[in-house]
Parts: sequence; C-alpha cells; structure tokens
Amino acid sequence: MLSWFYGGTKSTNVRVSLPAVCFVWQIAMIVLFGVFIRYNEEADTHWQEFRRENNITSDIENDFYFRYPSFQDVHVMIFVGFGFLMTFLKRYSFGAVGFNFLVAAFGIQWALLMQGWFHTLDPATGKILIGVENLINADFCVAGCLIAYGALLGKVSPVQLLVLTLFGVTLFAVEEYIILDLLHARDAGGSMVIHAFGGYYGLAISWVLYRPNLNLSKRLNGSVYHSDVFAMIGTLFLWMFWPSFNSAITDHGDGQHRAAINTYLALASSVLTAVAISSVTQKKGKLDMVHIQNATLAGGVAMGTAAEFMIMPYGSLIVGFCCGIISTFGYVFVTPLLEKYLKLQDTCGVHNLHAVPGMLGGFIGAIVAASATEEVYSREGLINTFDFEGDFADRTVGTQGGFQAAACCVAIAFGIVGGGCVGLVLKIPIWGDPADDNCYDDEAYWEVPEDDESIAPILEYNNHMIHKLPDLSESNFQVEQI
Amino acid sequence: MLSWFYGGTKSTNVRVSLPAVCFVWQIAMIVLFGVFIRYNEEADTHWQEFRRENNITSDIENDFYFRYPSFQDVHVMIFVGFGFLMTFLKRYSFGAVGFNFLVAAFGIQWALLMQGWFHTLDPATGKILIGVENLINADFCVAGCLIAYGALLGKVSPVQLLVLTLFGVTLFAVEEYIILDLLHARDAGGSMVIHAFGGYYGLAISWVLYRPNLNLSKRLNGSVYHSDVFAMIGTLFLWMFWPSFNSAITDHGDGQHRAAINTYLALASSVLTAVAISSVTQKKGKLDMVHIQNATLAGGVAMGTAAEFMIMPYGSLIVGFCCGIISTFGYVFVTPLLEKYLKLQDTCGVHNLHAVPGMLGGFIGAIVAASATEEVYSREGLINTFDFEGDFADRTVGTQGGFQAAACCVAIAFGIVGGGCVGLVLKIPIWGDPADDNCYDDEAYWEVPEDDESIAPILEYNNHMIHKLPDLSESNFQVEQI
Amino acid sequence: MLSWFYGGTKSTNVRVSLPAVCFVWQIAMIVLFGVFIRYNEEADTHWQEFRRENNITSDIENDFYFRYPSFQDVHVMIFVGFGFLMTFLKRYSFGAVGFNFLVAAFGIQWALLMQGWFHTLDPATGKILIGVENLINADFCVAGCLIAYGALLGKVSPVQLLVLTLFGVTLFAVEEYIILDLLHARDAGGSMVIHAFGGYYGLAISWVLYRPNLNLSKRLNGSVYHSDVFAMIGTLFLWMFWPSFNSAITDHGDGQHRAAINTYLALASSVLTAVAISSVTQKKGKLDMVHIQNATLAGGVAMGTAAEFMIMPYGSLIVGFCCGIISTFGYVFVTPLLEKYLKLQDTCGVHNLHAVPGMLGGFIGAIVAASATEEVYSREGLINTFDFEGDFADRTVGTQGGFQAAACCVAIAFGIVGGGCVGLVLKIPIWGDPADDNCYDDEAYWEVPEDDESIAPILEYNNHMIHKLPDLSESNFQVEQI
Repeated sequence: MLSWFYGGTKSTNVRVSLPAVCFVWQIAMIVLFGVFIRYNEEADTHWQEFRRENNITSDIENDFYFRYPSFQDVHVMIFVGFGFLMTFLKRYSFGAVGFNFLVAAFGIQWALLMQGWFHTLDPATGKILIGVENLINADFCVAGCLIAYGALLGKVSPVQLLVLTLFGVTLFAVEEYIILDLLHARDAGGSMVIHAFGGYYGLAISWVLYRPNLNLSKRLNGSVYHSDVFAMIGTLFLWMFWPSFNSAITDHGDGQHRAAINTYLALASSVLTAVAISSVTQKKGKLDMVHIQNATLAGGVAMGTAAEFMIMPYGSLIVGFCCGIISTFGYVFVTPLLEKYLKLQDTCGVHNLHAVPGMLGGFIGAIVAASATEEVYSREGLINTFDFEGDFADRTVGTQGGFQAAACCVAIAFGIVGGGCVGLVLKIPIWGDPADDNCYDDEAYWEVPEDDESIAPILEYNNHMIHKLPDLSESNFQVEQI
Repeated sequence: MLSWFYGGTKSTNVRVSLPAVCFVWQIAMIVLFGVFIRYNEEADTHWQEFRRENNITSDIENDFYFRYPSFQDVHVMIFVGFGFLMTFLKRYSFGAVGFNFLVAAFGIQWALLMQGWFHTLDPATGKILIGVENLINADFCVAGCLIAYGALLGKVSPVQLLVLTLFGVTLFAVEEYIILDLLHARDAGGSMVIHAFGGYYGLAISWVLYRPNLNLSKRLNGSVYHSDVFAMIGTLFLWMFWPSFNSAITDHGDGQHRAAINTYLALASSVLTAVAISSVTQKKGKLDMVHIQNATLAGGVAMGTAAEFMIMPYGSLIVGFCCGIISTFGYVFVTPLLEKYLKLQDTCGVHNLHAVPGMLGGFIGAIVAASATEEVYSREGLINTFDFEGDFADRTVGTQGGFQAAACCVAIAFGIVGGGCVGLVLKIPIWGDPADDNCYDDEAYWEVPEDDESIAPILEYNNHMIHKLPDLSESNFQVEQI
Repeated sequence: MLSWFYGGTKSTNVRVSLPAVCFVWQIAMIVLFGVFIRYNEEADTHWQEFRRENNITSDIENDFYFRYPSFQDVHVMIFVGFGFLMTFLKRYSFGAVGFNFLVAAFGIQWALLMQGWFHTLDPATGKILIGVENLINADFCVAGCLIAYGALLGKVSPVQLLVLTLFGVTLFAVEEYIILDLLHARDAGGSMVIHAFGGYYGLAISWVLYRPNLNLSKRLNGSVYHSDVFAMIGTLFLWMFWPSFNSAITDHGDGQHRAAINTYLALASSVLTAVAISSVTQKKGKLDMVHIQNATLAGGVAMGTAAEFMIMPYGSLIVGFCCGIISTFGYVFVTPLLEKYLKLQDTCGVHNLHAVPGMLGGFIGAIVAASATEEVYSREGLINTFDFEGDFADRTVGTQGGFQAAACCVAIAFGIVGGGCVGLVLKIPIWGDPADDNCYDDEAYWEVPEDDESIAPILEYNNHMIHKLPDLSESNFQVEQI
C-alpha cells in the first residue's frame, strides 16, 4: 500500500476523476447559485424603480457603464493574458491555455459565492446580489490561483489544478475579508491580496510537491521560437490592460482615472529597466525572452496597492524602475538559487513576477498611505481615497500605513501556510499527475496532432534521395571487404 | 458542355472573377450608400441641437457611450474570433483568417443597407440614418454568414463566399424583420436570428455541395500543434467577449447589465461540462482540442435569446451546463453520423456549436418568456423587457412565448430553405472552387511562402550525409549482383 | 580611424550601450516627471471639488469615461497591432514585437513631456497636468516612431531605435504644435501628424542608412507560414480598433460617434479593393499576404483627418476604395522601383501604408474642410467641428482648407528633413547595428531557443535510414571504378 501512496508507476489517465470533478462541482455551483445568488438592483428589472428612488438621473449612471470596459479588459488578462503567457514551453501550450481556461471558468463561479458570502451577503434576505463589480472581483480572485498555476506549470494534472483552485479561492476570500474589511486596508489592484498571496501560495505548493528527478523532463523545459512569440501575446495583453486591472474597482471618477495613469507609467518604466538588466547580465548583451515576457510586467504588479493613491507620476515611474530591476535580477540569479538550495521548482518564475513585486507593492502602498497629507489630497480626498468613514472615521494616515503593512503580512502568511496545506493534499497520489520524466508534455492530457506537415516534405525528399540509390539494405548488394 | 457544367478539370484561378466581384460590388455599395445612408442625429453635427430639444443633459448620454465598448468587443469577435477559430487546419490559416476578413468587410456594408431598408428607413426622407447600434447590427448580420463559412471551410472559393454573403445577408435581413418586427419576438443575442439561421444556412449549403471524394484531401483535414494554438486565440476572444455580444443591443441600464452577467455565467458553466465530456469520451481520458475550441462556447450561443430575461444566475448556469454537454456529444457522435448518413460535410462542426445550441437557445427563450411573472419582473420591468408597447401592449407572456417559439422555427426554415437555394447557385461551376483533392489548402488561393526555415538545416544535413557517400547514382558505380 | 568610422567589422554587442541608454534615459524621465508632471483636475483627489465648482452633475462626466475605452483600443494598436504586424519576417519576430515594446514604452514617457511642454503646460504653475487624453496623445506620438521602425525593420539595433524615438518624438511634438496650434488645422486621427510624418521620417532615415549589400541577408527577408499568421494578429487588431484611433480625441458626443462610423466604413471598403488588386496583379490570381496584411489598413490611415468631418458615409467608402487600390499598387510596383532607383529599402512598405495614404488623407481633409457648408453642418456644428473660436472665430472654411493643405506639407517636410538628419546621427558606427549579411535575424540581439523539436524526429529518421546502410564512408568499403 505504501507504494501506492508514494507513487510507484504513475498514470495520467484522468478519465474518471476529471469528468467526475467537473460534473459534481458544476452541479454544486448550480445548487448554491440557486439558493444564494440573485441580480443586484442595477442588473435587475426593478432598476428603473431603484433609479427613481435614488434620484439617479440617467441609465448611464448604472455602475455597468463605469466598470464594464475595465471588466472586459480584466477578463482578457485572465483568459488570454495568463493563458498565453504560459504557452512559452515548447510542448505545453495546450495545457497552458487550456487548463488556464478550465481553472478560471470554475474559479469565477466559486469566487462569486465565496466573495459573496464574505462581502455582499444581504443579511435580510440571505442572498448575494451580484453586478458587474462582483464579476471583476471574481476574475481577480481567480488571478491568484492562475499565478499559483504558473509555479506548477507542466507538473500537475488538471484535477490537481481544480483542487488548487477550490482551496485557493476559499483562502483568497478569507484573506481578502481580513485585509479589506477587518484591517480596512486598501488594495484596489491587489498587490497583496492577489499577487503576494497567489505567488506565495504557488511557491509553497511547488515546494511541497518538489520533484527531485525533474531533470528527466529537462528536454521539454524550454521554449521554441514560435512558442515564445505566442507567449508575447500573453505578455502584451497583460501589460496593456494592467491599467484597467488596477483601476477596475477603484472609486468612480478621479479614482479610476488616477489608478490608470499611475499603472500606465509604472509599466512603461519597468520595460526599460527589464531590458537593461536582461542585456547587461548576458555575455554578449543579448536579450532573453523570459525577462521580456515577465519582468516588464513587474511595475503593474507593484502598483496594485498604491495606484489609487496620490503617488504622483514620478512616483509611479520610480516604482516601475525598481521593480523592473528586481524582477529581472530575480530571473537571472534568484530562481536558480531557489531551485538549488530551497528545492523550489518555479516553472514561470512567479517568485520574481508576483510574489516579490506583490510584497513590495504592499509595502509601497503602506509607505505612500502613511505619508499622505491633507495638503496633497484635500480633506475630502483623503476620506474618499482611504475610505475613512463609519468605524474608521478617525483613523490617521499613519495608522492606515501600519494596517497596510500588516495586511501585506497577512497575505503572505495565507499564501505560505495555505499553500503548504494544499500542497499536502495535492501530494496524495490519486490526482493523476505526470511522472518525473513526463512533465511539460501535452501528450499526457491532450490528444496532440502529429506534426506531419513540416516533416512530410523532408521524408519525401529523403525517400526520393535514398530510393535513387540502389537498394543497399538487401542481400542483392555485395559489399566487398578488403 | 456537360463536362464543363459538372466540373471536369477544376481551376482555382480567380484572377478575373474575384477582382470583378470585389470592384463591382464595392462600387455598388458606394452608389447605394450615396443614395440611402446618412448619419443619425447622434452622430451628426446637429447633435447639440437635438440634445437641447430632447433635454439630454450631457454628451455622455449619446448612445455612443452606451454601446461603443460593446461594439468593439463584437467587432473583435467577428474578425479575430471567427477568423482565428477557423485557423485550426494545418494549411488553411490564410484562408480562414483572410477570407473571413474579406467576407465580413463586404458583409457589414451590405448589412447596413439591407437592415436599414427593413428596420430604420426614415419614410419621410427615404434615408437610412446610422449610428453605433447599426454598426453592431451589421456585425451581427455578418456573423450569420461567417458561421455558414465554418461548415464550408476549405471547400469553397472566395468568390463563392462573397456570393454566400450577398444572399446570406439578404436572407438575414428578411428573417430578422419577420422575427423582430412582425412576430415581435425578442432575440438580443441572436440565438435564433444569428446562430440557428447561420448554422442551418451553412449546413444546407454544405449538403448541396456534397463532395463524395473529399477524402482525397484527407491529409490536410486536421490540425498541427501550432495551428491549434492559433485557434485558441479565436476561441478565447469569442468566449471573453460573448457577454458583450449578447448585451450589445439590449436596453440601456439593467438590460445590458443583466445580459452580460447571464452570458458570463452560462459560458463558465459550459467550459466545465465540455471538458468533462471531452475527457470521458476518449479512451485514455485525454482532452480533444476540437471540443475545447468549440463546445466551450455553446453556453454563449444558447443564451442569445434569454440573456436579457430574468433567467436568474442559476438558470444561466443550467443552460451552459446542458449545452456544453450537448455540443461536445455532437462533435463526438453526431458529426460523424451526419457525414456518413446525411452526406453532410461540416468542417468546423457548426451543427454542434451554432445550429443546435442556437435552436435550443430559441426555445429556452420561449420558455423563459412564457414563464415570466409580474412578481419577478415588476409591471414596468415586464413591459420594458418584452417591449409590450404600441401594437403589442396587451400581449401576455404566454402569447409571447408562443411567438418566440414560432420565431425559432422561422429562423431554421430560412436557414435550410435559403441555404438549399444558395447551394444550388454555388454549385454552378463558374466560381473557381477547388477540386476534391485540393481542399483545405491555402496553395489554391494564396501565395504561400516556402517554409525553408525548418527544412533547410535538415536538407543540409541530408546532403552532408549523402555526399559523404560515394556517388551511387551514376554509372561509374558498379553494383555487383550475386 | 577611418575604418572605425566607416564600420569595418561590425559588432552587434549592445551590452554596454543598451543598458546605459535605458538606465540614463529612464532616470532622466523620473527627474523630469518629478519637476513637471502632475495629475490634472479630473485625475486628482480634488476632483469632487472641481466637479461642484463646474456644475458637473455626475462622476460619469469625468473625461475618463468618454475616452478610456478608446484609449485602451489605441493602446492595443500600438503594442499588439504594430508589434505583431511586423512579425511577418521568418526570423525577426522577437525583434519586431520586442523592440516595438521597448521603443513604445520609452516613447510614451518622453511624449508626455514633449507634448506637455508644447500643449498643456500651465503657465502659472509651470506644471504639465495629465489625464487620459494625454495618454492617448502619447500613444499617438509613439505611433509615428513605430511607423518609422517599419521601414527599418531588421536593419537597425535597439539602441538606434531608441535614438530614433528620442528625436522622433521631439520632432513630432514640434510639428504637431505648428500644425494644430499655429496653423489651427484639424487632424484628430493623425493622417498628417502621425502617418505622413512617421512614414516619411522612416523613409528618409532608411535612405540615409542605405545598405548596398543587403541582398546578403536576402534569405531571411521573407515570411514563413506561421509568421504570416502572427502578422495577421497585428493587422486585425489595427483594423478593428482604427475607429477608436480616429475618434479617440475628437469632440465628445457626435464627434466621436461620427469619426468611428467613417473610419469603420473606409476600412471595410479598402479591404475589398486591396483584395481585388492583390489578385489581379498575380499571375494566377492568388492573393499575397503582404497586401492583405497592409493595404487593407489604408482606409483607416487616409480617414485620419477627415473622420470627424461630415464626409458622409459614401464619402468614407470612396476614400477607402481609392486608398486600398493605391496602397496595393504601391506594394506591387512602387516599392521595387523605390529600391532600385531611389536606393530606398523599406522593409514593411511604410511608403504604401503610411506615407502616401497619410499624405492623401491630409489633402482629403483639406478638400472636405474647404467644401463644408453651414447647410450640412449647421452654424453651431461648423464652429464645433473646426473649432472656429477665439483667434480663429472668423476663419472661413476655404481658408481652413488652405491651412489643412499647408499642414500636410509641414508634416511631410518635418518627416523628410528630420529623418535625413536623424539618419546621419544613426550612421555613426557606434550603435551596434548588424552587418549587411546579418540583417533580419533575431540571433543578433536575442537569445534564440534552438528549434530542436521539429527537427529531432527527422534527424532520428535519417539516422535510422542511413544506418541501415552499410557504413559507406570508411575505408573498409571498396567502390569499383569501371
């Protein structure tokens, strides 16, 4: 029985487990949605009534029009951005984009429920009322799990990914509740809640699932020319739409406007420093696609918390400047060390793109919050930006800064501890993960077409050339030995 | 002469016909636009006057701001979504994305005219006044023809596609007029008007154009690794933007908001069931890219009619759940049977993605409409949602359900009968379609670059190896027969 | 020393120069942003105050909501559109998409400063106040430089591109100031300011950098199958979002609405004529991907100036019709002649897609402006459209037409003269550009993965086949000469 528990021969056949999980969980979603989820008043046919009662002058003031364009950009980041960013491996593009798709499609449903219970449950009716902002938050929540997938890319089965997502979304909703509601920290673009949490969550799972013989799959742990170009689709859609990501759920008006500007600037800045470090750390000054695909995004991650604050345009540039450097250095130096000394196998380098820049983003947010002044923000602006209302009406910016920093620690702790526990669950050998010599390979879970196309003409040419020769392999040919 | 009529040797040379059709039709468009089409009052320089007269308080209430983001998403679905979805064939990516581009660019112009004549012709001036909603509707109209293209992919010439589009748009405008105006059915996302019509239109044409010897092109009727990744670009952009598709022309405010939420949920649900069925129907539980690329979208198709209704979030999940299953089963079992017994060659499986889910969507809409209650919708909501105004002020929801079902039948009938007739037109052997052994091949209509890149090093290697041999093919070499 | 100056042996090692330029310039940006750039009142926490003072009734009237969706579309055009359009070369996709990314990320920062100094510097505070419109304008400004890159694709180093961008953005800001502020010409979509300028700027640089022995790199100056499909991603995102490009900074309300409609129509029309000419100019009527990728966009370029005018829908179709023809003819006939007789090496054919259609667009704008009437526009519409206010209150449409034409000449002059000068700077052999036999090759500046994947099975097959032969290459084999 021990051999069963510790693996023995591994089968990647998920013909029972994958359909079972998909069906059962989807049915559970339907039941739970039936019990708990309804449209909110802005998405309901009672909207016109609601509009009159609240003196809303026009349909255009429906939250839909404030947030839907940002929502769609975020949606693209989740499905195309994360999905294609991971297609860089030479033979794992189906898994990258396909499992990303599966995981996200399940995760957004579960996130609507989990986040609903914690944040928007109407105590009177016991219902969760959803609108476009909930859809954005569900996408955000899933982003944490997709980040974790990045660390595990090529080494886990789709069933493991679904389990990772189930627990990941649950943990996310709890830490988000602690951070946003209890600590009353601000984190509109999720440096802490999404990136630090997601990054450390994935790293902790990867650490638990350490594969000592992973170099048996080394031949497939790399890119080919076109897979790198596919990955750039992911990079660019993430990069371009990050201003929408960080501004999607900020305050109407100046809040969204400012968050978009700050993120735009931080991202631009991190491109230049990522390129600089990539070139200077290679012998001949050549650029490495891994850095361009990833480290250029570090500015967006690090601006997640502070984007809605008055960090000032030059402040955003500084954030991007530093994080582009740190992230690229991470890819060059830290990832190999982590693998060597910490037994941490991090396929996409989420440590450098999400964990560290996310953590930094949290602390940057704390500092910017702590140094906010009424002079810069105006009294009203300060209240709006940090939501100093209700129970938190007399919080000072200094205290806020402290709570922001505490929030960042909470996110990291949830990631590491939660990831450790989930890793143990995923270690149980019933999930159909691939053997050590079978990683990074779509063959394990996908019907892969034969690439005869590129080979055919050559085989033909070969046949032609060889058949022009007399048949040398048969016995009617006599080679004379001297 | 009979041999001429029935094909004999086929030439794919479209050097006369393609430019002629493009030029003549484009000139016709210019003339007809000159006679009929003007800007509507929201796109015209008289807007400020109009605004004052209608007490519109702000420029932001111009319909442009309600619909332009959705329009752009729909536009992406038409050109990138449909285009790239069809790139999955190993050697038909140019045709997939290029002819899709050509057909859509012509179709939207013709649709502006056809839909204008039927729906928005100003009787006083005899002009069609266009704005952003017309652009969306033109894109919708073209979608029907692009769906039909999916059934014919690789087997028709660009001239045939243009003819298909000319008639397709015409038929579309008529059936749309009958369904929306005469029957007063609702179909915001076009389950019936777009998908059921387009799907059956394509299938009927394909049936008429049946090629008994198509297996001569069998070698090219399949994907390669990278073409499947390209196709995922199409899938994902369709999937992500489908909420915009179904909400693009619904009512301002709650209508758009609710339609987006419902579609988002149905799509998420159909991903899980498509994956489940794909895995369970394969021997080793491996996923098939065809299912992931297509059946995951079935939820969006089926929500086309009901998205704006109060189907409730769990209702949307159920729709996606069922259609993901049905669509995947279609790919696994029904398509092969259709080909075998009905002589129906359906390259992209539009039967499973558009025809059937579209039809189901129509009937789901009928049921949801028939079961609408004032309790759920409010009196005002009911009137707004089903547009029970003017001539239709005293229609009951039950009657509405009946008309919805009738509308679905109309769409299917138009598709089948129209497609049959157009198929006969396309059978006339003057359109330059490829021979049976020349299908699915870009060589027929495109200057295809030689892929020397990947072959060159191998040829070199070959030459090297073979030239290391003594020249065996010339007469100075003597083979001794034993 | 002369040999040093004139090249001698060329090294593409940019390990010092590239990081140095990136670092120093990025630090300069931070300092300059610190001194000059702040949020404008719509992005600042004082917004609620500003709103009350200016009687703005709702947050939705923040300029952010008028322009952010268009901004994101433009952003996609700059990074994915231009980037992927240039991936068509078989081995320069990394450089196409990667250097495009680098150049644009630097350029938008420098553009915010340069355009700010010329257009939006607050004389009281000495600050540039930025909002979403500035971000759009920065993207526009960079577009000019990316167009110039198209002419130089594969022949320059990333350091040269950064230098090109530094000067390009500077020149752009000056010509834009002359054209928009001094001449008071209208050019919302930048036919003149962006396309004519950018096109001639790139051509002039390319002319100065003429490489007589470029045919040494001929083997790489072409596409392969999949690189052409990648390029279509660029084409389509440019094509689809061009209506946003031309309408992004036009007047709120009807201005944006009309510009989007006109561009949509012109683009549709140019697809048909590009296809027609592509087919008719090839022996067998086959389509050429170069034309489909490029000439289909000519309608968008040419509508840049006139899109916001009352050119009427049929007018837009005519513009697209003509420019699709002219542009495709350019690719077929003019580019080879330019190379042969003018020593102009234009990798992407920017002459045909940007320079000429941009120039035509400028003159079309002049004609449409000159023929504007109060009858069509209304008095108020005329004033709004051409901004006949302040110093320009009594300008007539005829005069306006004259100034528009003059503006077009200014843009071209700036492009040619500026490009000539910048070309001389780039000729100094310190920038690490590739040798004549090393162009169009990512190996020069990128760590390129080995494409073992597709070759491995063939090599194996070869080995198998050849090893089945007796070893013919060793001395134990005797060939008998007759």
